[in-house]
This record gives sequence, C-alpha cells and structure tokens, in this order.
Amino acid sequence: MTDTDSSTTTAKAPTRRALLGWGGAGLALGAAAAGGTVAMSRAGGDVDPAAAESGAAVEFHGAHQAGIATPVQDRLHFASFDVTTRDRAAFVQMLKDWTEAARRMTAGKPVGEGAYGGPAEAPPDDTGEALGLKPSRLTLTIGFGPSLFEKYGEAFGIEGKRPAALVDLPKFPGDNLDKNRSGGDLCVQACADDPQVAVHAIRNLARIGFGKVAIRWSQLGFGKTSSTTPEAQTPRNLMGFKDGTRNIAGTDTARLKKFVWVDDKDGPAWMTGGSYLVARRIRMNIETWDRTSLQEQEDVFGRTKGTGAPIGKAHEHDEPFLKAMKPDAHVRLAHPDSNGGITILRRGYSFTDGTDGLGRLDAGLFFLAYQRDPRKGFIPLQRRLAAHDALNEYIQHVGSAIFAIPPGVRDARDWWGRTLFSEEA
Amino acid sequence: MTDTDSSTTTAKAPTRRALLGWGGAGLALGAAAAGGTVAMSRAGGDVDPAAAESGAAVEFHGAHQAGIATPVQDRLHFASFDVTTRDRAAFVQMLKDWTEAARRMTAGKPVGEGAYGGPAEAPPDDTGEALGLKPSRLTLTIGFGPSLFEKYGEAFGIEGKRPAALVDLPKFPGDNLDKNRSGGDLCVQACADDPQVAVHAIRNLARIGFGKVAIRWSQLGFGKTSSTTPEAQTPRNLMGFKDGTRNIAGTDTARLKKFVWVDDKDGPAWMTGGSYLVARRIRMNIETWDRTSLQEQEDVFGRTKGTGAPIGKAHEHDEPFLKAMKPDAHVRLAHPDSNGGITILRRGYSFTDGTDGLGRLDAGLFFLAYQRDPRKGFIPLQRRLAAHDALNEYIQHVGSAIFAIPPGVRDARDWWGRTLFSEEA
Ligand code: HEM
Ligand code: HEM
Repeated sequence: MTDTDSSTTTAKAPTRRALLGWGGAGLALGAAAAGGTVAMSRAGGDVDPAAAESGAAVEFHGAHQAGIATPVQDRLHFASFDVTTRDRAAFVQMLKDWTEAARRMTAGKPVGEGAYGGPAEAPPDDTGEALGLKPSRLTLTIGFGPSLFEKYGEAFGIEGKRPAALVDLPKFPGDNLDKNRSGGDLCVQACADDPQVAVHAIRNLARIGFGKVAIRWSQLGFGKTSSTTPEAQTPRNLMGFKDGTRNIAGTDTARLKKFVWVDDKDGPAWMTGGSYLVARRIRMNIETWDRTSLQEQEDVFGRTKGTGAPIGKAHEHDEPFLKAMKPDAHVRLAHPDSNGGITILRRGYSFTDGTDGLGRLDAGLFFLAYQRDPRKGFIPLQRRLAAHDALNEYIQHVGSAIFAIPPGVRDARDWWGRTLFSEEA
Repeated sequence: MTDTDSSTTTAKAPTRRALLGWGGAGLALGAAAAGGTVAMSRAGGDVDPAAAESGAAVEFHGAHQAGIATPVQDRLHFASFDVTTRDRAAFVQMLKDWTEAARRMTAGKPVGEGAYGGPAEAPPDDTGEALGLKPSRLTLTIGFGPSLFEKYGEAFGIEGKRPAALVDLPKFPGDNLDKNRSGGDLCVQACADDPQVAVHAIRNLARIGFGKVAIRWSQLGFGKTSSTTPEAQTPRNLMGFKDGTRNIAGTDTARLKKFVWVDDKDGPAWMTGGSYLVARRIRMNIETWDRTSLQEQEDVFGRTKGTGAPIGKAHEHDEPFLKAMKPDAHVRLAHPDSNGGITILRRGYSFTDGTDGLGRLDAGLFFLAYQRDPRKGFIPLQRRLAAHDALNEYIQHVGSAIFAIPPGVRDARDWWGRTLFSEEA
C-alpha cells in the first residue's frame, strides 16, 4: 500500500469517481485524475499501457469488472466461498462492504482505518501485511455460483434469477474431481503482481465476510500462463511451452464483445456486461512429462517448444496450419477453425502445492476461462478435448467450478451484485 | 533464463570461474567478468548492492553457500528429499550433477543442452518453464539431515562424520508436528525474486535426482519475512508486523563469523565455512489474530504495528527497551540481552497453502534460521519461547527439520558435499 495515512485523507476528499457521476461505464481515468500517485488503467476492454507498469493501480470501476480483459498480472489468489447466513440484508451489506474494501485495496489503500489507525482497544480494520507495498495492479473480480441460486434463491429473493447459461458443468471423461476443490456459492479472483497483495485482499474480504461467508477452497497461482497483451512476452506453463499465444487480446473490443461479454439480448438483464467463468484445477503429471521426448512434447501441442511457433511455421504468432499437426494435437483440437469457432478468454495460472505424498510435485495449471456462454464455450470445447486430446495422457482435471461474473461496479456509489440484488436501475 | 542459446555458447567457453582457479573463496566477480549480461554479487558474507537489482544473478561460488548471508529474495521453494539409493558412486555423481545444474541455473542458464536444443528423440535436459526469465537472484543452498548419517552412514562411507551440532531437535512444548512435513535426508533451499525460477530449479534437481532421491515434502513461500540488508524496507509478516528488523546483516562479517559460520575449531573439518539450518513450519491462527485488538497485538510482539518501533521508542531501528515490554512479549524473550546473547540469522517466508477444511486459511511462517551451532542457537531460544511467548496463543509449530549446511562450492571444479564425501583437499 503506497500511503499508510491515506485512510484519513481519502475519507474526507470526494472519491475520484464520484466527481464524474454515474454512467461513465468504461470511462478512462487519466493518471492526472488518479490522485497523482499511481497510474491507473481503465477497467473493461481497453488496455492502457500504463497499467502494465509494475506497481501501478488498475481502475476498479467500469462497465466490466477488471481482472478479465485487463492485462494479466503475475500472481493469483483465488477463493471460493460458501454462504453461511440466510439473512438477505446482512448478505447485501457484506457485498457493499466488500465493494468498498475492494475499491480501496485495488487503489493501494488499506481497508477502513487501516492496520493501526483505529482505536487501540479494537482489532484494526486492515490486517496490515500489505502496508508499504504498491497496488501491484491488484484486480478483484467477484462471481456467483449455481448453488447460490439453488440454496439461497428464496432467502435472498433471487429465485428465478439464475441465468440459463450458468449451467452445472457436465462430467467429462477423465474427470477426477475433488469436491473440496470444487464448486462454491461465490468466488473472488484476486490477481496482482505481488502475491502478498493478492493474499492480503482475499484474507481481508474473508474477514469482512465472517459470519456471512466462509472460504470453501482457495488456490494460489504463482505464474501466469496466459496473456491478454499480445505485445508482451508470452509466459511459459509448467510443461515448458509458451501459453496464451492465441488468446483474445484485451484490446480486441470486437472479439471481447462477441465471445466474452454478456449482451443485453442474452439475458438475464442483471448479467449485461458480465461474463461466465469456468475454473478447473488441472494437475500435471510432471514426472512423466519430463521423461517424454522433445518430439512427443511438440506433437502433443502442435507447436515447437523453443519459439512456440505452430508446427511447420517459423514464428510464434504465425497462423497455425492445423493439417501439419497430429490429429490429436491440443492446439489442432482447440483451434476455432477445427471446432466451429469456439473461442474463450484464458487467464490461468501455474500452481505448485507441495508434494502429493508419493514424492511427486502437486503441480499444474489452474485453468480460468471467461466466456459469454459456457454452453458455447468451455463445455463443447472440453467435451472435444476430454475425448481426443493427446495432452490427456499427462494431465488430470481435479477441481471444477463455474460462476456468473456480474458486470462492473460503475462508480463510487455502486456495489458488487447490485444488478442482481437491487431493483435500482 | 536470459539467453536461450547460452547452452551451446557456454559449453565451449571456459567457465568464468575456471579462469580464476581454486582458492578464490569469497572472491568477488565484477559485473565485467560476469559475461557482461548480468550483474553478479559475491556469495558468502559480503553484499554487493548490485545483487539487490531485480533480475540479477548471485554468484554461486564462494567460501560460504549463497542463500544465507546474501540479500533475501522475495520467493522461496524449499524441498526436503529422502535418499532412495544405497549406491555411493551414484549418489556422489548426483551431487556433482546437481552442482553443475545449480551453477547454470543460478547464472540464468538452462540445465545441460536446454529445453529444446538436444535431440528430438530424447527428453530435453531442461524442463523449460524458466526460459526467457531473468536469473532473478536465484540461490540454491544444500543441506544434509541427521537421517542421512544414520541411514546411509555405512553405505556412503560417512560413518562418524555426523557433526555433534547436528542434533535431533527435542520436542518443544506446544509442538504439533506432522511427520510428512518434517525431517529429510537432504534439503535444497531455492530463493529467487520470481517464484517460477525457484520452482523450476527444485523441479529440475528432483528430476536429475530421480532414482537417487525423492522429494519428501516441499514448501512454497510467497513473501520474505526477513531482511539481511538493513537499508532495505523491512517486510511484513502475515500478522502485519515488520519482521527481520533486528536480524544479522549480510554485511556484518563479525556477527556472521561469531553466530553463523562454522569455524575450523568447531569441527568437523568438512563443515568449516558451513552453517546449520533449522526449518519450522509455523501455522498462524489468522482468524483469531485478526479479531485481536491492536493493543494486544502490539503487546504480543513488544513493538508497534505501524512503524515497527520497540514499545516506548519512536523509530523501527531504535534499540529495544525491554523493560517497557510485557514480560511475555516475543521480542523481549527473543532479544539477546534477555537470553544470554543467543543470536540467529532468520530467513523465513510467509506461506498460504489454501484452506484447512474448516474454512480457515492454512497460512503462517515458514521459519528458517541459520546458526553456527543449534545447541547454542535455535534450541535454547525456542525452549524459552515455547514456554513463555505470548505469541504462542496465535501460532502452532507443525513441521520441523534440521540440516548441516556444508561450506560453499569454491569454483567450477568443486561440488556440493565434496568436503563430506571426498578426501581431496
Ligand atoms: C494443463 C492443461 C493445459 C495446458 C498445459 C494447455 C496448454 C496450451 C498451449 C501450450 C497452447 C498453445 C499456445 C496458445 O495459443 O495459447 C494452448 C492453446 C489453447 N488451449 Fe490449452 N492447455 C491446457 C488446457 C486447456 C483446456 C482445458 C482448454 C479448454 C477447454 C484449452 C483451450 C485452449 C485453446 C482455446 C487454445 C488456443 C488454440 C488456438 O486458437 O490455436 N486448453 N493450450
Ligand atoms: C510465527 C512465528 C513468529 C513470528 C510471527 C515472529 C515475528 C517476529 C517479529 C515481528 C519480530 C520483531 C522484529 C524483528 O526484530 O525481526 C521478531 C523478532 C525476533 N524473533 Fe520472531 N517470530 C516468530 C517466531 C520466532 C521463532 C520460532 C524464533 C526463534 C526460535 C524467533 C526469534 C526471533 C528473534 C531472535 C527476534 C529478534 C529479537 C531482537 O533481537 O530484538 N521468532 N519476531
């Protein structure tokens, strides 16, 4: 957090966004308006190069939530929560409190009065471990799971509001799901360039949510495996391959509109400007992979390991020539040209969670995919991959969840979930 | 890794160190000698400010292993291994292969022929996920556990070489140790500013060790909780307090000599220039801590949360006035003035390993302490803390290990463990 005293000063000053009023969906705030301390990038589709600056803040408000099309940060802390109250008012108040905390933390400020500013006889508002750290491009993205509607639909007055696209994921061939790493009524994806900033954010939200929600499972990701900024160097996954080459760019407004953002014609109305997230914990059989020949590794993906070029092509960003690849190559099967145009936005992270008790690293890909409709995105694609992908010999899906990602928080008066829980326009 | 083709060019060029010959213990290599690509800092006691530059390489060779007194990096991957062979020659060859791999990886180069440079029909020498990444100040530090001597003393011809100081740690009050997170015949501490670089290093060593060693447990640390560079900002632990304020500085040759490095009079001879590492996985009861008043939190440590100043003093680095603290304050009990001068070098990391099944974060401090003799360092200090420390209400020791850390690898011909396994001078 840049300024340990900011809690006091900011509480008095009008918030930056309040000055601009409602309706500025996707509106960019220049660095000048951003309090002069940190460069801000706009949330939603368009990428401000300033956001790629290490340590900068990413604008929390916008038509879309940040953390989807905004540039991918280096680290992740993802948390899935179960609801533990049936009190609608308490739950809605928590969403408002979360929003305010998220607004502050993404701007590099501590929660409430901070970690030591309040009365000595009370627990501090902020847990403190991010004091002195930069905003680190922290984004916080909230989602609602199918079980929220099933279990709390009546209590929370959201019966009938479950989107048709928020389906229960089918069982795919090869799935070996651990229910303790699957599902959840609610999720928060925290991404930042500094893991301590991401962990701090989830912890403080969990704390604010005490008595209303409890963490069901959480996942730390230490390395991004995708990119939404095509000019940046493509990161490598734990199989050593460049990953995210043919991802949707955060600047590609047309493809984002077509494949990622929920349209007002899609319905339900509360989801307009939102998206759907599928999260899959995919374990890699690292030891087997590491004993596989270079040839086989490149055949599995249909790309070369060194440059990441499609088989038969010279450069990473050359258009893949699918027929040069083995029929069961991952890229051949996943490429839109071979599957009727399916396109998703990938935003996954590598994980390593110690060892599995058999001396093997418990490592893999925490796969995160955003799409306009999972029935036209992840589900048909994964059906195809689960049935045919050469990669299946080296991976196993061990966790799974799906969430409806509501639209962005528009301004300083707006809050996470308002379109779902409130009748206000 | 800075240069994906370096495997070829470097194999032909004489190694930098070979040019300098034997005996250059602790000798510094200037950036000019370092191949011109990255700034190098010397291993051992003295700190080169260039090493603090993000992305730089830390010199692997020296009188002492790097990763102890060298500046603390941001991330950790620590692995404890069990030996799985009784073949001395195979084990020694593995140590030599590890050394060569460590030498390359700490310089930002891939293992062997790299991730795609070798023959297509063979598995690549390097797993590849660190290609294109900077050296990130990677240090690799090896240690030998008591069980290596007990179980393999005869097979490996190292009977009677177990140092007297390499004791089995006693059980301390409050210990709740998980044997799957404790002990080990061998350890490697990998520290780097980029977690992918640290994870890559451990994975590649594990791979090279296949059939000779297997990972027993491993621990990822996402945030440093200590500093050996007093000029740097002190990091905060997960309790929100600055941690490492009164640590031994990496530049303080006198205190390092007195408290960290094994002397030739200490014995055994093979340990001269080495140290002893105690590792403790300490779980924090985050949720309880977060509900504790600021007053109580500051009383527990004997320092203020904001600036980190000792109670009653104004600045972080002011000399603590112990009598102003509660009798059971952590700092009061741990301070050398109150315990007969015990001094250790702390180099721990914060961890968060998901959730514990009860909705609580499985988070805490992976405590790492280096010392000249644990019988005069960690053991008496922890006896005192375990019995009296106010902090005990909020923490629990759940993993434990001790290792003898041999001296540094002197030059390009030297190897990890040579002083233990070989009679060569
Ligand atoms: C551990 C599991 C996986 C690994 C290691 C992996 C790795 C890769 C790699 C290296 C590429 C090529 C570079 C690129 O364009 O990004 C790729 C492409 C792709 N992957 Fe995966 N992937 C995994 C799982 C999945 C899953 C579960 C899906 C969706 C159900 C998926 C969908 C895609 C898509 C759509 C592409 C782009 C294809 C194209 O347009 O050329 N991947 N993946
Ligand atoms: C989760 C467990 C622990 C936490 C959160 C913790 C935290 C702290 C903090 C905040 C300080 C004050 C700042 C500083 O000088 O570094 C400190 C000091 C210290 N701690 Fe700990 N500590 C823990 C466990 C231990 C253990 C197990 C030992 C050794 C057995 C230890 C030994 C020390 C020492 C020697 C000092 C410096 C005292 C001085 O010279 O003033 N700590 N610790």
